[in-house]
Amino acid sequence: MNVLRNPSGEELENALRRPVKKLKNIKKIVKPILKNVKAKGDRALFKYCMEYDHVQLTHLVVTKKEIDNANKQVKDDLKQAIITAKKNIEKFHLAQQTEELVVETSPGIICKRKSVPIERVGLYIPGGTAPLFSTVLMLAIPAKIAGCRELVLCTPPNKKGKIHPAILYSANLVGIDKILKVGGAQAIAALAYGTESVPKVYKIFGPGNQYVTAAKQIVAEKGTAIDLPAGPSEVAVYADETANPDFIATDLLSQAEHGADSQVILVTTKESIVKETLKSIDKHLVDLPRRKIAEKALEESVAFIVKNESQAISILNNYAAEHLILAVKNPEAVAEKIINAGSIFLGNYSPESAGDYASGTNHTLPTNRAALAYSGVSVDSYVKKITYQRLSEDGLRSLGPSVEKMAEAEGLMAHKLAISVRLKYLNK
Amino acid sequence: MNVLRNPSGEELENALRRPVKKLKNIKKIVKPILKNVKAKGDRALFKYCMEYDHVQLTHLVVTKKEIDNANKQVKDDLKQAIITAKKNIEKFHLAQQTEELVVETSPGIICKRKSVPIERVGLYIPGGTAPLFSTVLMLAIPAKIAGCRELVLCTPPNKKGKIHPAILYSANLVGIDKILKVGGAQAIAALAYGTESVPKVYKIFGPGNQYVTAAKQIVAEKGTAIDLPAGPSEVAVYADETANPDFIATDLLSQAEHGADSQVILVTTKESIVKETLKSIDKHLVDLPRRKIAEKALEESVAFIVKNESQAISILNNYAAEHLILAVKNPEAVAEKIINAGSIFLGNYSPESAGDYASGTNHTLPTNRAALAYSGVSVDSYVKKITYQRLSEDGLRSLGPSVEKMAEAEGLMAHKLAISVRLKYLNK
Repeated sequence: MNVLRNPSGEELENALRRPVKKLKNIKKIVKPILKNVKAKGDRALFKYCMEYDHVQLTHLVVTKKEIDNANKQVKDDLKQAIITAKKNIEKFHLAQQTEELVVETSPGIICKRKSVPIERVGLYIPGGTAPLFSTVLMLAIPAKIAGCRELVLCTPPNKKGKIHPAILYSANLVGIDKILKVGGAQAIAALAYGTESVPKVYKIFGPGNQYVTAAKQIVAEKGTAIDLPAGPSEVAVYADETANPDFIATDLLSQAEHGADSQVILVTTKESIVKETLKSIDKHLVDLPRRKIAEKALEESVAFIVKNESQAISILNNYAAEHLILAVKNPEAVAEKIINAGSIFLGNYSPESAGDYASGTNHTLPTNRAALAYSGVSVDSYVKKITYQRLSEDGLRSLGPSVEKMAEAEGLMAHKLAISVRLKYLNK
Repeated sequence: MNVLRNPSGEELENALRRPVKKLKNIKKIVKPILKNVKAKGDRALFKYCMEYDHVQLTHLVVTKKEIDNANKQVKDDLKQAIITAKKNIEKFHLAQQTEELVVETSPGIICKRKSVPIERVGLYIPGGTAPLFSTVLMLAIPAKIAGCRELVLCTPPNKKGKIHPAILYSANLVGIDKILKVGGAQAIAALAYGTESVPKVYKIFGPGNQYVTAAKQIVAEKGTAIDLPAGPSEVAVYADETANPDFIATDLLSQAEHGADSQVILVTTKESIVKETLKSIDKHLVDLPRRKIAEKALEESVAFIVKNESQAISILNNYAAEHLILAVKNPEAVAEKIINAGSIFLGNYSPESAGDYASGTNHTLPTNRAALAYSGVSVDSYVKKITYQRLSEDGLRSLGPSVEKMAEAEGLMAHKLAISVRLKYLNK
């Protein structure tokens, strides 16, 4: 971890910049995959599964029997933990539902807005070393609360053609309609275009490697909505003298273990906090199974020693962290000054991992400074807010002349005419 | 206008498909413009202004004097109409504000969500034949309500270096912070990267030609958020025997006059409605100043004669219109069955132009089937919803073991460790 004292200007900008991933070459690899899935459907999916997942599948859709087996394999204490997490996530996301809005903007003019679920959504869960069943909860629970009619989940099988039982257990628990053994860019293509086995969806959610990310970008440009622009996960910790270096160290490590490209930064006014945190990191690194990954991520990471709180806040707002931990005396007061962040963890007993799994907030959050303009996944992400308006005869009589005037000034005479023919009819 | 009876399958799909615009070649033209603005700032903007708008400007920022002059030039009755529209738009968008959400998901675990304004936003208003001051209202009013700190408006000057007075009047009325005489792809570049005169913003809103659209797509991929994927404007009218053919005709025409690529469709169970509407269109076309544009748009447009309401609803949900007019006996009941649309106009006295200008709903809406997954512009578009969580000692004690269990099952041991060190500390 690099240490910077009172950085400013270019030095600060460079320290806060995330490593840029060029997707151009990746897109060249991904485009033929998308085309092929579009043209050949399931046949292409079986072929890519053989090629990339090294297994010859006989069917893509996970069967009821497979789910039943998975349910038996997951141990009771893990099931109980998942159920606890589900309950908290549900409680927080249920509160995000919105009532129909009805406003009489002027006499006789009623304007309304209503949340209507996106009919079909696709959830992508990556394979690889960590079976992200927690992401199944985070993506499916708000979708169910929103009322989406069909939830389709794609995830790659292992070499034996199987999916991790905790993923199947969680998917079944939250009511996924269809689970498919399809991974990578080909899964994104299948969700965007539809195949014999995979229903075409209107919005695709979920993390993935750079092939998945590139595929999501391409289908998004062509009209399938996606959840968020993707980037490596990241955490910023702001610590004052009340912080506990062991807590900070393990928080930084829990982000660093995600991937070698993960970003972690520490901002503090106390030089001693940095020293002790670095010492604690070294101590805790030793026994970590993902030590190598974490070490790589820490090489690119920075601890900032700043003069005062206002300098700290300025750095944090500039960085716009996906996760921001405020390990300070009065975290609520500091949080008031934060304008850019995905999710904020208040105080010494709110580690990021609590929110990653079970506190109730969503863990699908804006990375790579997207928090400047984007929100994390919520029930909002699964609905469209349709507006409505109804003018009464009197409403049209009173508003009509204003509309005619404005339409005329914009040179759009048919717009004016649509009012005029009605006013004429009413005055007959 | 083409007429189709009970279409299904491929015939229906083809009829509902929007003309695809290939932006690939446009992007090749736009990319060097973006690069140039990024590298040379204002100097590039002055150069492009000379090249595309045919005027040598001495300054890019509109002065107070120019605004004062514009205020004098706009006639009082137009001012009054704009103020009426502003009042309605404000009233509807004020109701969209959200309170902070606070949920205790489990004892000792508080989760919160709060809307925080995007700090700086850019609004693009196109030049061309129609001075879209109504779009200034639609984009700026929700931004002000959201609390955005800086609103930057770019719009191209005419050959005399001037901006239409109604645009300046409206921009000043709604409290735009900075108005710049910059148009086209170069304006999008300036807003995304910042120049000496143009502040860098985090999200760009507003319509534009294909160069603007391509530029927005490119900067969006690189991290500047944009309002919506762009497409030509469109309306669908669903009419039963209670509809008035003159109303339908002028509604269709008011969409058709937007551009030669505008889309209008009519769906009805009554053959006679189609006949009379076509007759009325011919009658009203004659005197329209934008007749040629409207005629071109109508060539590509379709009237569907269907068997019953359920066939109509199915077509309308498949089409997912930006604007949907329900000119039927019980529009509210029909609206309940619509799951895909941008904004819905209920009944015979709710023409699209009312919503385009002054009823209170926003006119920046999803086109080209984006209504399957996107909402129109609202106060939501100008905020990020940041989540917060605070665990008390007891909250962590009770939730911690579940988090440890899940983290372990995902193989993320540092995530577990961040809990364990805290629990150990608490149990000391």
